[in-house]
Amino acid sequence: MSGTNPYQQHLDRNPANYVPLTPLSFLARTARVFPDRPSVIHGARTFTWKQTDARCRQLASALSKRGIGVGDTVAFLAHNTPDMYEAHFGVPMTGAVLNALNTRLDAEAIAFMLNHGEAKFLFADREFSPVVKAVLEKLGRPITVIDLDDSEYTGPGDTHGEMDYEAFIATGDADYVWSLPADEWDAIALNYTSGTTGNPKGVVYHHRGAYLTAMSNAVDWAMEPHPVLLSNVPLFHCNAWCFPWTIAMVAGTFVCQRKVSAKVVYDAIADHKVAYINGAPIVLGLILNAKEEEKRTFSHTVNVMTAAAPPPASVLAGMAKQGFQVTHVYGLTETYGPSVVCAWKDEWDALDMEEQSRMKARQGVPYTVQEDLMVADAATMQPVPWDGETMGEVFCRGNQVMKGYLKNPAASDEAFAGGWFHTGDLGVMHPDGYIQLKDRSKDIIISGGENISSIEVEGVLFRHPAVALCAVIAKPDEKWGETPCAYVELKPGVEVTEDEIKQFCKDHLASFKCPRDVRFVELPKTSTGKIQKFILRKMLQEEMDVPL
Amino acid sequence: MSGTNPYQQHLDRNPANYVPLTPLSFLARTARVFPDRPSVIHGARTFTWKQTDARCRQLASALSKRGIGVGDTVAFLAHNTPDMYEAHFGVPMTGAVLNALNTRLDAEAIAFMLNHGEAKFLFADREFSPVVKAVLEKLGRPITVIDLDDSEYTGPGDTHGEMDYEAFIATGDADYVWSLPADEWDAIALNYTSGTTGNPKGVVYHHRGAYLTAMSNAVDWAMEPHPVLLSNVPLFHCNAWCFPWTIAMVAGTFVCQRKVSAKVVYDAIADHKVAYINGAPIVLGLILNAKEEEKRTFSHTVNVMTAAAPPPASVLAGMAKQGFQVTHVYGLTETYGPSVVCAWKDEWDALDMEEQSRMKARQGVPYTVQEDLMVADAATMQPVPWDGETMGEVFCRGNQVMKGYLKNPAASDEAFAGGWFHTGDLGVMHPDGYIQLKDRSKDIIISGGENISSIEVEGVLFRHPAVALCAVIAKPDEKWGETPCAYVELKPGVEVTEDEIKQFCKDHLASFKCPRDVRFVELPKTSTGKIQKFILRKMLQEEMDVPL
Repeated sequence: MSGTNPYQQHLDRNPANYVPLTPLSFLARTARVFPDRPSVIHGARTFTWKQTDARCRQLASALSKRGIGVGDTVAFLAHNTPDMYEAHFGVPMTGAVLNALNTRLDAEAIAFMLNHGEAKFLFADREFSPVVKAVLEKLGRPITVIDLDDSEYTGPGDTHGEMDYEAFIATGDADYVWSLPADEWDAIALNYTSGTTGNPKGVVYHHRGAYLTAMSNAVDWAMEPHPVLLSNVPLFHCNAWCFPWTIAMVAGTFVCQRKVSAKVVYDAIADHKVAYINGAPIVLGLILNAKEEEKRTFSHTVNVMTAAAPPPASVLAGMAKQGFQVTHVYGLTETYGPSVVCAWKDEWDALDMEEQSRMKARQGVPYTVQEDLMVADAATMQPVPWDGETMGEVFCRGNQVMKGYLKNPAASDEAFAGGWFHTGDLGVMHPDGYIQLKDRSKDIIISGGENISSIEVEGVLFRHPAVALCAVIAKPDEKWGETPCAYVELKPGVEVTEDEIKQFCKDHLASFKCPRDVRFVELPKTSTGKIQKFILRKMLQEEMDVPL
Repeated sequence: MSGTNPYQQHLDRNPANYVPLTPLSFLARTARVFPDRPSVIHGARTFTWKQTDARCRQLASALSKRGIGVGDTVAFLAHNTPDMYEAHFGVPMTGAVLNALNTRLDAEAIAFMLNHGEAKFLFADREFSPVVKAVLEKLGRPITVIDLDDSEYTGPGDTHGEMDYEAFIATGDADYVWSLPADEWDAIALNYTSGTTGNPKGVVYHHRGAYLTAMSNAVDWAMEPHPVLLSNVPLFHCNAWCFPWTIAMVAGTFVCQRKVSAKVVYDAIADHKVAYINGAPIVLGLILNAKEEEKRTFSHTVNVMTAAAPPPASVLAGMAKQGFQVTHVYGLTETYGPSVVCAWKDEWDALDMEEQSRMKARQGVPYTVQEDLMVADAATMQPVPWDGETMGEVFCRGNQVMKGYLKNPAASDEAFAGGWFHTGDLGVMHPDGYIQLKDRSKDIIISGGENISSIEVEGVLFRHPAVALCAVIAKPDEKWGETPCAYVELKPGVEVTEDEIKQFCKDHLASFKCPRDVRFVELPKTSTGKIQKFILRKMLQEEMDVPL
C-alpha cells in the first residue's frame, strides 16, 4: 500500500510534527501562560502554577539524582495534599511510574503492593506512621522512605524516613529539564484495585490515556475556564479520576483536603469559590444533611460529579434547590475513572423531578474520548437488545482502557478477551443508547429461580424519606434458595420501624423482590464511600454459620 | 530496556485498549447520544445528527462502490453547504482524503491541484460551472464530476456532472459500516496553500491532528455545551479551522452560508441563536458597520474568533458594547488553522479599552494541544530574548503541525528543518511569553537602514476613526531605499483628507515610520478576507515602472 499511496511518501513523523501525548505538557503550558494563577490550595497555603511547576521539577530532579528513571515505581501513601498533587507530575517527569496507595489498607496489603510493584521509594504522610512501621517490617527488603509532614496535620505519628519531603525536593533543581516519554504508551501510574477476593491487581495507566481522559473530563463536564475543583475523590483512587491533569490543562485550581466533611465542602465553596466537586454519592448526603452551622451561603452553581450509585430523586431535588448541579458518571479503575457519563438532554428539563431522577440514575453513554460501550451476553459477547430490560455484561473499548494488569498476563488476557474490556458489571441498554447498571454479577439475588437485582431493591429503599444509605444482599433460604436482606442506615434523628420499611417496599416492588429482613446499621464503607457488601456478607455468614 | 522494564511486559496495545484517534469517532458518538439534535442548518433546511450520520455513510458507501478507498483523493468545490459539511466525514470514512478547493481560484490553479492531488472525483457547486467547464478542458484526463445543486442557490450555472449529489448518495447505504483508519497518522485532508509565488503546496492533515485540533478548539474557546456556530471561515480554508469536527464532538450545530454578509450574520444570531462565529477580521467590520435595517436584536453573548490581523481597540470596544466577545487566534494552513491563542487573563479586565486592545492584539500562546512555540533567529534557531522587541521568526512544533507537503519532500524538509515548523512569519516574544507578529519577512520596509514593521504602521492607521481597512507596503525611494506607502479603505460615508491621516500617523509614530503616501482605495482581498498585498505591490510597480 505505502508503495503507491502518495499520502505515505515522505510524510513521516518528525520532531516538528509529532510529540507523544502526555499530561506533563499541560503543566508546562499552564506554567508558561498562567504562572501567577493559583494551582493548589491547602489550608492556609496557596501555590501558583509557577511554584507548582518548579516544585514538580525539583521532585523530579531529586528523584533522578537518586537513580529513579524509566520503568521505576515511586509509591505515595498520602491524603489529597500538595505534595501528592506534585507527585502526579514530578514522578512521571523522570520516566517513573506513580503508585498512589489506598490509605485505608493494612500493612500486609501495602507491603504486597510495594513488592509487587517493585517500588523503590515510599513517600508517606506522618499520620500513617504506624502502618508504615509495620510495612517496613513485613517488606523483607530495603526501601527509601521520605516523610510527608503536612502542616495541616497536628495529630500523632512518627517519622520513619531518611528526610522530609521539603528537604528532599530541596536537593533537586527547579530548572530540571525533563523529557517527554519516549512513547505515549509508556506507563504513568500504577493503581491497585481494592481486591476483595484474591490479591489486588495493579492497573497500569499510560501517558496517552491520562492525557485524553484529562481532556474528556473538561469537555464532558463542560468546565468553565479556570475551574476551582474540590476533589473528594482521593488522589489514590484512579488518580482522582485524572482530575489533577485536567486542572493543569485548564489552568484551574485544585483544592486539597485531608478528610471530607460537610464543613470542609461548604468552606471550600464559600472561601475558594469551588464550583466543581467530584466524589462518591456519600458526598451528596454529606452536603444535604449538613448541620445549619456547617453550611455557608454562596451564589454560584456548584457542579457535582458523582459515580457508582444512582442518586435518588429526593437527593437530586434537594441538591438542585441548594444550588448544586449533579452529573452522574460511571467507570472503573481500569478505565481511568469515569468513562461513561449520563449526558443530559435539554428535553429532560421538562420532566418532573421523579422522571428526571430516573433519567439521571442511568449511567449513560461513552465519554467523548471513549470509543464504544455495549451490554452483551457475557458468554457469546452478542449485544443484548436495546430494550432497557435484557440484562447483560457491560463491555467497553477505546483509549480510556488501561494498558493492562502489571505482571499478570492471565488477568489482562481475560479482561481484554474478544477485543473488549470486561467490566464485570451487569446492566441493560435502554432504547436511547444509555446503559443502566443493574448489578455486579455476584450481587444478583436468585430467589425461587427468579433474578432479583439488588440495585433495584436499593433504589426503592433509597426513595424512603428516612433512609440515608442502604445495601441489599442475598440471604440463604431453605425454601427459596436466596431472599433479599436489607441493611439500612437511617438519617440522623429519624425513626422508622422495620415493618414500615417492608410495607414501603411492598408498595413499590413485586413481592418476591421485597426484603424478608431489614436491619438498621451503620454501613461499612471504603475510603471512597463505597459500601462494602462483602463485609455485610461475612457478618451474615457468621450470624448464620453457613457458607455464602 | 523492554527486557527489564516490567511496564513493557505483556502490556501491549490491543483492540480493547487502543483505537486510532479520528474525528469520525465524534460523529458516531454524537449520532448515538444526540440523534435528534440539529446538526446542520442551511436556509430552510435543518438536519439532525442521525440524518447527517446517515447521509455521511451514504456518501461513503456510494464512493466506496465506485472504488474510492485508502489513499484516494476526493475534491470538492463548494461553499459552506450541508454536502460540503458531510464530505468532512463521508470522504474519510472510505479511507480517502478530502481536498476542499478554494472557490475563488481560476481554472488553471484548480486543474493544477486536481492533477497534483490525483483527485478521482470532483464534486462542484453549480455556481462554479463556468470554471468547472474550463477545468475539465485543461485537465487532460477524465475525472468523475458530481453536481452540487444547492436549493439555496437560484443563480445561473449549468451542470457538468454525471449526476446530482442527492442522486449519488442515494446509491449508497445509510447503514454502511466504515472502518477506523489503520493508523491515526493516515491522511484525512489535503489543503492547498494560496501560493502567491510558485505552485501551490498541498498541505496534508492526518486523523490524529484533526482530532486533537477539534478538541482544542472547544477547550481553548471554552465552548458551552451544544454550541451553535456560524463559520465565516470557508470549509475550504483549513477545513474551517477543523470546526466541522469540533461541532460533531460537542453535538453542536453548524450553520451554513453561501456568502457572508451583515444580514446573514445577524439573521443567524437572531434566528438560530448562533453564539459562536469564526472568521477573518473583515467579519468584525461587517458586524460593526452593518446598516440599521440589517441588524437584529439578541440577548446572548456572541463569541467571535478571529485570526490574521489584530483587531484595533475601537473595533473591540464597539464589539463588546454590542454583545460580541472577541478571541484572537493565529495559525496557518500548515497548523490546521488556529494553533496560537491570545488566552485572556482576568487581570486584564481592569485595563482601559486601549490597553485591553493592545493585549488582545498579540497573537498569544500555544493552543492547548500544541506543544511549543518560539520566536528565534531564522538562521541559528536560537530563541530571541523575551523582551517584546527583538524580532525573529516564529517557529512551532507539536501535534498541530501538518504531516507535510504532498509530493514535495524538499519543501517539507525545509519547513521542518531543525525539528521545528518554520512559519515564515516574523514577530517578537513578550516578557509574559505571548508572541506578537510583526510581519511576514517580505512585508518589512527598510527605510534609511531602519526596519519598519508594516503591521505597526497599520496598527496606528486602524486606530483612526475613519479607517475601515488598510495595508502598508514598501515604496522604492531614491534617497531612503524604501518608504512606507499606505492604502486605506474608509468607512462608508466618512470623509478625511490625506493630510489628516498623515498628521494622525505623525502623532503616533516616529517620523521615519510615517507613510509618505496615503491612497484611498477599495483593498483587494482573498476569499477569506486577507488583504492581498501582492496586488498592491503589482499596482505600485506598474505605476512606477520599476521592479519591486
